[in-house]
Order: sequence, then C-alpha cells, then structure tokens
Amino acid sequence: MPHKVLRIRRAQVDPPTRPVMLAIAGDSATGKTTLTKGLVEALGPDRATSICVDDYHRYDREERRHLPFTPLNPECNYVQIMEQHLQLLATGHPILKPVYDHRTGSLVRPALVEPREFVIVEGLLPLSTRLARACFDVAVYLDPPEAIRHQWKIKRDCNDRGYTPEQVVAELERREPESAAFIRPQREEADIVIRFAPIEGRQDPPGTPLSAEVALRPTIRHPDISRVLGEEHHAMHVKLARDADGRPIDALHVHGYASREDSRVLEKAIWEQLEVDHPFPESLGRLGGAQRSEPLAIAQLLLLYHLLDNRPDRDLTALVPATT
Amino acid sequence: MPHKVLRIRRAQVDPPTRPVMLAIAGDSATGKTTLTKGLVEALGPDRATSICVDDYHRYDREERRHLPFTPLNPECNYVQIMEQHLQLLATGHPILKPVYDHRTGSLVRPALVEPREFVIVEGLLPLSTRLARACFDVAVYLDPPEAIRHQWKIKRDCNDRGYTPEQVVAELERREPESAAFIRPQREEADIVIRFAPIEGRQDPPGTPLSAEVALRPTIRHPDISRVLGEEHHAMHVKLARDADGRPIDALHVHGYASREDSRVLEKAIWEQLEVDHPFPESLGRLGGAQRSEPLAIAQLLLLYHLLDNRPDRDLTALVPATT
Repeated sequence: MPHKVLRIRRAQVDPPTRPVMLAIAGDSATGKTTLTKGLVEALGPDRATSICVDDYHRYDREERRHLPFTPLNPECNYVQIMEQHLQLLATGHPILKPVYDHRTGSLVRPALVEPREFVIVEGLLPLSTRLARACFDVAVYLDPPEAIRHQWKIKRDCNDRGYTPEQVVAELERREPESAAFIRPQREEADIVIRFAPIEGRQDPPGTPLSAEVALRPTIRHPDISRVLGEEHHAMHVKLARDADGRPIDALHVHGYASREDSRVLEKAIWEQLEVDHPFPESLGRLGGAQRSEPLAIAQLLLLYHLLDNRPDRDLTALVPATT
Repeated sequence: MPHKVLRIRRAQVDPPTRPVMLAIAGDSATGKTTLTKGLVEALGPDRATSICVDDYHRYDREERRHLPFTPLNPECNYVQIMEQHLQLLATGHPILKPVYDHRTGSLVRPALVEPREFVIVEGLLPLSTRLARACFDVAVYLDPPEAIRHQWKIKRDCNDRGYTPEQVVAELERREPESAAFIRPQREEADIVIRFAPIEGRQDPPGTPLSAEVALRPTIRHPDISRVLGEEHHAMHVKLARDADGRPIDALHVHGYASREDSRVLEKAIWEQLEVDHPFPESLGRLGGAQRSEPLAIAQLLLLYHLLDNRPDRDLTALVPATT
C-alpha cells in the first residue's frame, strides 16, 4: 500500500453505522416514490432516508435539447459519481448529492445526505452497473404494464411538471428505445419484481385498487409465504413458477379486491417471521387521503421485512410506533 | 470485512493514476490563485488541475447574513465533504465538486473534476484537519504581512466582486478573530511558508517586485540550496534559522531587486537536482502583462520541484515545452 494511502487510512475515523441499502429501480412514473415514501414513514425519518439517483443528471433540460439522448441514457448521467456516492453511503459516509429540480429542469446547489440505518435509493438507473448493484442488500424493480405507466406519467407530468398530455406522449415515444436499452434490463438484476396491474378479464367496481404480482427471486432469502398461503386462497396466492427468463421464482399474487382481513393473515405471518417485539406498522398501504391498497401494503411489508432482516446487529426494536 | 464491503471492493476498478497533491493554504487575498495558475501553466492543463476548497461553503451569502460566523469558520463549510473529496482525488477518483459563485455569492450546480497527474488544492482551509493533511504530498502556506494582504483584498474585492473599500475594511475587521482561530494555525502544518513582502528600511524604485522569504521546513526533502547559495550572495541568500515556533528551518530570502541573471543561477541549480532532461519552464515568475518577479519565479520553481519529485514513477518527461 503506498504510504499516502496508508496515511489517509490511519487518519480516517470509522463511520458509526453501515446502513442497510434498498434499491427501487424502474422507468419514469412506475410508483417508485409512493413505495419509497411509505417505507420511510414506517421506519421513521430519523432512522431511514431516501435519495433519488435521477439527480445525477449530467445536463439540464436546456442542454439536453441539443443532445441526441434522453435522461434514461447512462451517457446523460454521472453514473461513475452515482456509483461513488452509493459506495460512500453503503459504507456509512455522508455525500454532497447533486440536485435536479424537476419543476424547472435545472441543476441547482447540491444537498448534504447523511446515511441513516436504512437508505432507500430510487430512480431510473440504480441497478445499471455491477459496482452500483454491489452496494445494495435488496434490489427491487417496478414493472407495471406500459399502458398503466403511461397513464400515470401523463397525470403526474401534466399536474406537477407543467407539460401538456401531447408533450408527455411524444416524450414517451422518444424515450422508448432507451427504456428498452437501459431501464428494462435492470429487471433481471432485481431480487423482487413488483407489478401493479388490473387483473385481465375481471370487471371490478370502480375504485378497486390494482392487484400486485410479486416475483420473489431466490437470490435473497424471503419470508416463507408458501406455508401460510396455499395456492387455493381466493384473494391471494403464491405459486412456484418460472420467470420470463426461465429462472425459478415464487410468484405471489395479491388481488386488488383482497379485504383488510385477508391481507392481515399474510401480513401477520410475514411479520412474525421477523421475530420483532413491536406493533405492526399500520401506515403501510396508504394511497393518499383515506384510500388503502392491500396489494401495496403487502408489497411494502415485504420490503420492510428485508430492510429489518438485513440490519447488521438485527436489533429489531428500531421501528417507530404505529400511528393509526 | 463485512460481505457487502468486500463485494464493493471486488466490483471496483482501480483508478489509473494516483496524483501528486499540493496544498496552497492562506487567508483571503494572499496570492493563492496567482501562484496556482503559474504552476498549472508550467505543467500544462492536460497534466495538472487545480481546485479551490472555498467552494465547500455550506451557506450562500444571503444565508450567512443571519449567521454568527464568517466563511473562515469550519462551521460555515462542509469540511467533512472536503476531506472526502481530497481523499478521492488523492486516490485517483473523480469528484462532483460544489461550486460557489464569488461574484453573486450563491451556490450553483456542481462540476465534475477528474484528477490529473498533479492536483493543486488552494483555499482557506485545506490544511485544517488531520485527514485533509494526510492527502497532500506537499503543503504550502502563504503568509504576507497583514498590511499587504489588506491592500490586495481591497483591490480585488472592489474590482472583481463589486464591494466598496469601506465594506472590505469592515469585513476584514469582522473576520479577524476567525482568521486568528482557524486560518493562521495552518501555518504550522506547512512544509513551506512563503511570505511576499517589501524589505523593511529599503527604498526600492517604484515597480520593484516584492521580496520573498521562504521558510523550508525539513518535514520534506528540499533541493540542496545552501551549497549553491552562500549567506553572502547579495540578491538572495539562505540561512539556517529557527522558525517563530523554535523549529529549525532553511530561511531563503530572494530580494525583489534580484536580477534575471541572479535568479537564473539558483533556478538552474534547483532544476539540475531534479535530473530532468527538459528545458527550464520559462513561464514562471510572470505577474501579468510583461511584468516579472524573480522572487515569484523561484517560489514557483521550488513548488514545481516538489510536484515533479513526488511523481510515483519519477518519469520526469512530463513538462510541457517552455513557451517564452
């Protein structure tokens, strides 16, 4: 080791914590932020923090006008700096994170992010490189059907970012080749793939939440669901299956019409496998206002399970009290 | 080593170069930028880069109005992030450096800095912590007399930053306690202390450059000057001396009236000790326009000597051709 590197190592103070890191990857408007917010809320903001890696854009909106790629392209992002910052967070160090203002499309002053016990990283490209993936304990990919995602994107970009529906549709078309080339390949790298979608052929009453199809890859150790949930249960079931690429998975289905009581059974079973002496976090599944979604609650609970299960000391008294 | 840290290490690609790092510390308006620019020019911008660590300000000018400290206070700066970025550069990694716009007093979008063979780091606080100091091969402190520094600061802040002389004088007074507490203690940490000043009691003709007093601490191995330069030489001399704190130093004096021929003798002697087969860099000592300063040329040459002498492979064919 060169003398200067040794001198630097000797002058370093070891960080107090090495956080549990969860990645939530997915295309634009796939529900990453909704999922993330629910998890930070359940863990408490003093123990969990989240960052969006879309802030690592290399160019602002004006500069991109003259460039041949969209924000989905790794060329359009400081991927090497994203990798560096993920490593720093994963080893317990703070970062000065760049900030992209989605409202104005400009890059503004950076912000200090100090790691907490749990760091949730959401965005377009968190699983796009080997080094970035090495930073995560759990990797999730959000994979709604394209038709649903387009609806969500039109709604959000028109309401919050000042675009017209025609502009959003044109942008979706322009982005499609780079979605295919850079975003969707991350699906293969995820431990958990979550797809919120209506069930084909069913006519549920208006207001019924979307169902969830959750692919649980045996790349990490999931809670044992198959013993709780047979293939027979009406509102949710789990099946041994092959994923699109032929690899074995547990395919969990939670139907949108599942009742609070239905999902309670599964939630309790998952929760008990964690062996935490703490009330169940009642904040999961909230969609905003008084709306609830049992499929969302179960998806969030699965992620919460993995966050807690990966804590280095497995001291599971960390959850904030439920706030129902 | 925890499995995730190992996984991250295994996914890392070793950076190609580990730069030689030079710190130039000193209070506001001590000539850090002039010295730095001359060195980058002599080495060539494709081989050398410089950063200013005053960009790590935590607050913009407006926010500082309501705060009890000046930019000199470590509290007013992201010192931990500065340390982190210095470590990254010292080990050959790029950084996304914050940027403070001195003209407007605001924090703007960060900039990518990729390390070169030589990285020169100038600013108010680069030697303020043990970890920051561990990142440097050579540490310099600029120490002009306060009266000279005040003149320089008034001139620069009024010409380039839109202040009135009265505002600058008031600011200097406000900063004095924090200069004493945080800036000046870095003098003790430097391998080389450079003081540009007029010689007391002498009446040189107008336009004579300032003299240089250079304290060479034996914390690093300097070129042997005493064998070239006796104590008798009229325009420059070197003396065994004690620094203000009692530690032994070589005290080199280069008078402002030294002629080009005088300084040539010393420059050649220093240059030959490097054993580089390359023409002497003629760009040193330029003050802007056609003005030259032999004291500045010799101070820059000493720093250039250390930059080249610290190259890991000691491949000294790196200098760009002289451009006289």
